Amino acid sequence: MKHHTHALTPPMGWNSWDCYGATVTEDEVKGNADYMAKNLKEYGWEYVVVDIQWSEAGAVSSAYRPFIPLEMDEYSRLIPATNRFPSSKDGQGFKPLADYVHKLGLKFGIHIMRGIPRQAVHQNTAIMNTETTAREIAKPNSICPWNTDMYGLDENKEASQKYYDSLFQLYAEWEVDFVKVDDIADSKLYGIHKEEIKMIRKAIDKSGRPMVLSLSPGPAPLEHASLLEENANMWRMTDDFWDIWPLLYDMFERCYKWSKNVGPGHWPDADMLPLGHIGIRSVDGGASDRYTRFTKDEQLSMMTLWSVFRSPLMFGGELRDNDEWTLSLLTNEEVLEIHQNGFGARQVYRENDRVVWSALGDDSTIYVALFNLSDHAQKVTASFEQLCFEVEQEVEIRDLWKKEDLKPIVDEVSAVLEPHACKLFKLTSEKIVHCQNVAQLNL
Amino acid sequence: MKHHTHALTPPMGWNSWDCYGATVTEDEVKGNADYMAKNLKEYGWEYVVVDIQWSEAGAVSSAYRPFIPLEMDEYSRLIPATNRFPSSKDGQGFKPLADYVHKLGLKFGIHIMRGIPRQAVHQNTAIMNTETTAREIAKPNSICPWNTDMYGLDENKEASQKYYDSLFQLYAEWEVDFVKVDDIADSKLYGIHKEEIKMIRKAIDKSGRPMVLSLSPGPAPLEHASLLEENANMWRMTDDFWDIWPLLYDMFERCYKWSKNVGPGHWPDADMLPLGHIGIRSVDGGASDRYTRFTKDEQLSMMTLWSVFRSPLMFGGELRDNDEWTLSLLTNEEVLEIHQNGFGARQVYRENDRVVWSALGDDSTIYVALFNLSDHAQKVTASFEQLCFEVEQEVEIRDLWKKEDLKPIVDEVSAVLEPHACKLFKLTSEKIVHCQNVAQLNL
Amino acid sequence: MKHHTHALTPPMGWNSWDCYGATVTEDEVKGNADYMAKNLKEYGWEYVVVDIQWSEAGAVSSAYRPFIPLEMDEYSRLIPATNRFPSSKDGQGFKPLADYVHKLGLKFGIHIMRGIPRQAVHQNTAIMNTETTAREIAKPNSICPWNTDMYGLDENKEASQKYYDSLFQLYAEWEVDFVKVDDIADSKLYGIHKEEIKMIRKAIDKSGRPMVLSLSPGPAPLEHASLLEENANMWRMTDDFWDIWPLLYDMFERCYKWSKNVGPGHWPDADMLPLGHIGIRSVDGGASDRYTRFTKDEQLSMMTLWSVFRSPLMFGGELRDNDEWTLSLLTNEEVLEIHQNGFGARQVYRENDRVVWSALGDDSTIYVALFNLSDHAQKVTASFEQLCFEVEQEVEIRDLWKKEDLKPIVDEVSAVLEPHACKLFKLTSEKIVHCQNVAQLNL
Amino acid sequence: MKHHTHALTPPMGWNSWDCYGATVTEDEVKGNADYMAKNLKEYGWEYVVVDIQWSEAGAVSSAYRPFIPLEMDEYSRLIPATNRFPSSKDGQGFKPLADYVHKLGLKFGIHIMRGIPRQAVHQNTAIMNTETTAREIAKPNSICPWNTDMYGLDENKEASQKYYDSLFQLYAEWEVDFVKVDDIADSKLYGIHKEEIKMIRKAIDKSGRPMVLSLSPGPAPLEHASLLEENANMWRMTDDFWDIWPLLYDMFERCYKWSKNVGPGHWPDADMLPLGHIGIRSVDGGASDRYTRFTKDEQLSMMTLWSVFRSPLMFGGELRDNDEWTLSLLTNEEVLEIHQNGFGARQVYRENDRVVWSALGDDSTIYVALFNLSDHAQKVTASFEQLCFEVEQEVEIRDLWKKEDLKPIVDEVSAVLEPHACKLFKLTSEKIVHCQNVAQLNL
Repeated sequence: MKHHTHALTPPMGWNSWDCYGATVTEDEVKGNADYMAKNLKEYGWEYVVVDIQWSEAGAVSSAYRPFIPLEMDEYSRLIPATNRFPSSKDGQGFKPLADYVHKLGLKFGIHIMRGIPRQAVHQNTAIMNTETTAREIAKPNSICPWNTDMYGLDENKEASQKYYDSLFQLYAEWEVDFVKVDDIADSKLYGIHKEEIKMIRKAIDKSGRPMVLSLSPGPAPLEHASLLEENANMWRMTDDFWDIWPLLYDMFERCYKWSKNVGPGHWPDADMLPLGHIGIRSVDGGASDRYTRFTKDEQLSMMTLWSVFRSPLMFGGELRDNDEWTLSLLTNEEVLEIHQNGFGARQVYRENDRVVWSALGDDSTIYVALFNLSDHAQKVTASFEQLCFEVEQEVEIRDLWKKEDLKPIVDEVSAVLEPHACKLFKLTSEKIVHCQNVAQLNL
Repeated sequence: MKHHTHALTPPMGWNSWDCYGATVTEDEVKGNADYMAKNLKEYGWEYVVVDIQWSEAGAVSSAYRPFIPLEMDEYSRLIPATNRFPSSKDGQGFKPLADYVHKLGLKFGIHIMRGIPRQAVHQNTAIMNTETTAREIAKPNSICPWNTDMYGLDENKEASQKYYDSLFQLYAEWEVDFVKVDDIADSKLYGIHKEEIKMIRKAIDKSGRPMVLSLSPGPAPLEHASLLEENANMWRMTDDFWDIWPLLYDMFERCYKWSKNVGPGHWPDADMLPLGHIGIRSVDGGASDRYTRFTKDEQLSMMTLWSVFRSPLMFGGELRDNDEWTLSLLTNEEVLEIHQNGFGARQVYRENDRVVWSALGDDSTIYVALFNLSDHAQKVTASFEQLCFEVEQEVEIRDLWKKEDLKPIVDEVSAVLEPHACKLFKLTSEKIVHCQNVAQLNL
Repeated sequence: MKHHTHALTPPMGWNSWDCYGATVTEDEVKGNADYMAKNLKEYGWEYVVVDIQWSEAGAVSSAYRPFIPLEMDEYSRLIPATNRFPSSKDGQGFKPLADYVHKLGLKFGIHIMRGIPRQAVHQNTAIMNTETTAREIAKPNSICPWNTDMYGLDENKEASQKYYDSLFQLYAEWEVDFVKVDDIADSKLYGIHKEEIKMIRKAIDKSGRPMVLSLSPGPAPLEHASLLEENANMWRMTDDFWDIWPLLYDMFERCYKWSKNVGPGHWPDADMLPLGHIGIRSVDGGASDRYTRFTKDEQLSMMTLWSVFRSPLMFGGELRDNDEWTLSLLTNEEVLEIHQNGFGARQVYRENDRVVWSALGDDSTIYVALFNLSDHAQKVTASFEQLCFEVEQEVEIRDLWKKEDLKPIVDEVSAVLEPHACKLFKLTSEKIVHCQNVAQLNL
Repeated sequence: MKHHTHALTPPMGWNSWDCYGATVTEDEVKGNADYMAKNLKEYGWEYVVVDIQWSEAGAVSSAYRPFIPLEMDEYSRLIPATNRFPSSKDGQGFKPLADYVHKLGLKFGIHIMRGIPRQAVHQNTAIMNTETTAREIAKPNSICPWNTDMYGLDENKEASQKYYDSLFQLYAEWEVDFVKVDDIADSKLYGIHKEEIKMIRKAIDKSGRPMVLSLSPGPAPLEHASLLEENANMWRMTDDFWDIWPLLYDMFERCYKWSKNVGPGHWPDADMLPLGHIGIRSVDGGASDRYTRFTKDEQLSMMTLWSVFRSPLMFGGELRDNDEWTLSLLTNEEVLEIHQNGFGARQVYRENDRVVWSALGDDSTIYVALFNLSDHAQKVTASFEQLCFEVEQEVEIRDLWKKEDLKPIVDEVSAVLEPHACKLFKLTSEKIVHCQNVAQLNL
């Protein structure tokens, strides 16, 4: 599973969907890339991802316009709409924009939909390196239930693989680093599209470029965790995530279920972070132009869960409109250290909406996150025994969001938490003895 | 429910599917109409129905060719392919062929698919009597899973009704008498399309022509029997029926379940009769060019069940190739009398694959069908008590398929039946006393 | 289907569940019977039904007590708890109470659960007229998911039929007229119990007493309408119905779906009428001791729907506590005339929560019910065309709940209705011409 | 997750089900234990497990007898039937038999059903250390659909945990080492019983004895892999496995799906090995007394898959009747080395019923299993690239079942395989370079 080396730590970046829906423009992408290079790059943020409908000249919001014509090349491949991405003129595709991003020391990503454009099928256009045409490889009964752009591809037709090969060859030529493939991990209508996932894996491998493969939307079925891990780098655990508490509440159970499947190169994905200024040209998620509806406590709980669990971190807001608070969420090195280098994350227990997670740092470091998911304040406690270590002396403890050392503790760690609030602690002692055989025990 | 008057008895006719799949030509239709007029009309057979894909110039068999262009008028309405239906030239549509059939004293029917052509949507063509175009009324997530011609229509768009109105106005102009609408009663992907059924009902009513409305494919959900009865004249109880014993075996249970919903104007449909010479240009049903694979006993069992239950009778074979046996199945007036004028059909009992059905004729007549669905010979008996009548003397009995009077009976009727065989008897006595209140009891 | 003669019109009566849950006593039954004889009998009310747990000496409310011992005879048959039904002492069972009811000119009914007592199975007691014991005929994997009294019976064991025979023989000896069998029409866990329904049908037929057979709970599956009609007299269309508007709102769709299956002897059942004083010793339905929570308009809408549709009418409240209003709902002869003698009831249309039903009286009478199911006042109209008749002159119209003749109408009937309100009209004219062939058309 | 230390390698042992169904006796258990101590112990085999119904004095085969009385102590706990287990007399339970097994240097295990005996509930017996009785803690709607012994326990009643505590305290007193809990991982009727799994985990932890917890039957839902891993040591991936090729064929897909969840202390379980002399008093699996119906090739394929995947190995046959061939399957140290110490097992690919698995030994050792699941001979190949390593020179290769060194190989390993056959190779070279970061990549 060589492709795991394409993402040995969980990817961090920015995606245009939460703020610009289907309509982001080149200038906006560049502006966010500039911001990232200046303010976030040093903390590990690197991917700049153009989300859905970049081939649609007249896209107006996050609402899809059915059966609208898209920009396409002679081989049935979608290309950027030049009115929105001027640098793509003269058939240059996303290469100039990728160059721009690369020059900033960042990486460039795009979104695609599974399959081949319906317009190619109904116009019966050509497939590169084949005698076949689009009509012959489209799978008749394979649509996306929420977007009318594409038909799925028939895995029994040899030219289907050729078409995917031609797509990823083009993206390699554009020097794309990250591809988010949509309508594939949970189609709503047909479940997961296993064969197309495999075709895409092969196409990327053939392209020779180590593009990260991200699969949407979710919930991807845990039932197919093996297939996902063996073919992709990240896959969504949920349907679209927005700034609404019940969705965040549910994520704890999802992370719990998927926690055994997290590891270098394969990252169950809790979806983008709807933080800061979002909904600028999007009406998805039940709201439009706004600052995130999450309270500060909820934002901390989200960042803490994503970091300890090691979900990919993809910021969804317009970066240039970040206030100090929002920026502070993205630049806490001590928290990001867990995200990039922690391991053995697990839910320690869940009881009456008190939830505790832990992760390991080095031999003398344990991270503990205490969450209160209930609607009233309550005390949340984790004993050293529950955290699976013993120690003969006091343990040092640091509040990572506050960046404060607290009074050393014995036997347990606890905090009284407001509703939806959390604490993220780092526990340190040279004397910690982990549960017997902890390394072997797949922590 | 005025439309019930369009089919006060269960329709009888011929349909091109079983012999010619998606490819029937005008000459073949005329040839079968001629045969019907000469040999069958006097027995009540009257509908001549052109099945699927009559707009596709290059149709080759029963296998659909994905994404193939179809003949279409300026208002996004499919019209006959002139190479297959030469009389439709110059925009005459099916009018000349309907005229031909009408002159023979018969009625003319066509098949359509629910919705609007995908090609209309992707070319964004006009909708008659509206400012709207095809793209705006198609329902994005509404396809047929087994045929790529159409998109469903969005019932929330006013112009969707207008489109259906324009379709049935055209068919009324063509003087069509019968329309079989497909991909609507059980879509496989989405269940029954209730809103489109209602739109079609309204469109027919507005057209002013009393066209019989037949819905396919099945199994239509019994759960929606009320809606079906209130909008259509017939609807399929099964997926496509072919000349295979297990399909016929299953039909007994289906007829049992639907028997309470049979009545003037509303006829649960056991599908076409795959008799005689079928599969000429069809590969559906697991076989190609052949004489029916049903044994003679099975053919009799099928004709008996369809007749007693009062399913529509649509012959599927090439009529001109009928042998004497096959013709005899279609011209037994005594059997057809039950089909046209019987009432109160019910399954009397079913036990160990012995099945008995009965129906009423006039006050002194009871029809009894004895079936042996097992694979070994067995005696099947129905007592007068089970048949729900009393009588003080012998009852006259006639074997309707043999057209023979038998020795009068007392107390019960019975027969030893070969595997898959049946007997259809007419019992007559002036002295019969039906179960108390039989008329009121909805027999 | 001789059993249809046991209930040629939809049954009317009283049932102890809504007021007394699992705890009714002999005195309470007698008291309600007395009231019925005095105040309701002349209007057609006749059944007095003792609901669930009459074998449980210590029953305390509508909440079942798990695994509690029940009174049982030597043949594994439940008998009345003598502390609650003193007249049943000395093995007399319900005979004395049935006698009491019969003397009042009324009929007597009981509730039973499908199957055999679990206590009989675990004590392995005898089955009458067999060498078999309870352990041998119970079906291992057949329980009721909401009550622990019984196991289902294995239809493959001959003695299972014998057990049911012995039950209904006992009820015949008691002179029971009506049996409500529970946990059988929709088991929640296993769907409908078809084989036990058939066994019970046979047992009643063998008993020689024409007991009405009522099946609970619902929703009985429409899919099995044929089986229900052929074995029972009434069956529930819903789970337990209570005095909550959404449940009443839903009933309109249920009645619509089942309207083709209503007829003499077979009555889809909308469940008991939670009117008057209910919840006296019941905590079911989300409330306890109360007068019905339905508004007067809702009560009228309920009574109108039940009457036009011809659901059985089983009053659920403590009759002796009826106020004048409640009594008036049960004693309107003109409304009850539709319930007992109307026919051809159908939903004329439903649009924006305006619902119209009609039924036929004699040749010159049409009943029309207008309902407003929305939460705002609106006008509801039905044209004569929609009602399926023509007439050359004015039609007389009478408001049946107000018992007032209104100004004659032409072309249509209409009313402005408050939220959840209805009107029930009788239209009369000697000149009415029904839709062509109306009689034949299964009206 | 301290309980993982109870089974740091996948358990190996013998279970009485495949040969003796519900009827095994003390002598038979001892006989098999003796055999194991003498012939198998040195290879790592250690558990001797008494399967279902040991409380039933009159058990006769693998077919359960419904509602039969069981031996039970005063606290509603099942105890061994003394006629079958004489050493359990005088309330000694399984302690004497466990002692016997322990003296042989082996470990002792038992089977139990989830819940509390139904007979305890209907007799309303006591629960140890509580004022509560059995009736109060049984969950009314919680049965096993294939066995009538027990009711499930209500997790909302405190005494339910007390009952489970009392059970495992008893087993700890008996010195039981392994408990197989049945009707819990997939109940057929209700899915997985999560709350009872958690109660049992707590009860074992409280008992203080490190009993291995095994959950049956399967398929346990992958969806709940986290819960299973956090509470049990092994859980079934399938319903009962027998000596029938299609069941073995399916196991490859099951192992593929679960391969990410295998690790020290938590072992997805492919079920017992139906090898040697089985069905002696069992009629399960579609056959009775026999030698395994698997061909030798199939037996090797099974042993290879179980070993590479690291399923627990529980022999199902009567050990004393083993022939040499069967014994040889259980005593190949080189194969068992993979089972006990291999890691990183994965399905390398699957194509046209050619399946390749690999696992790692030490840094210079890779195990490769080639399978042909098709019904015709074919060549199966795995390239070094697919196996995820590079090497500059020849690699040594050994056939582990034949115990033969073969000619060194370059670039790939392959074999021509008969239908259902396999090869298991050990590849060795000091020069192997694993895929980049192989350790980190969760191999």
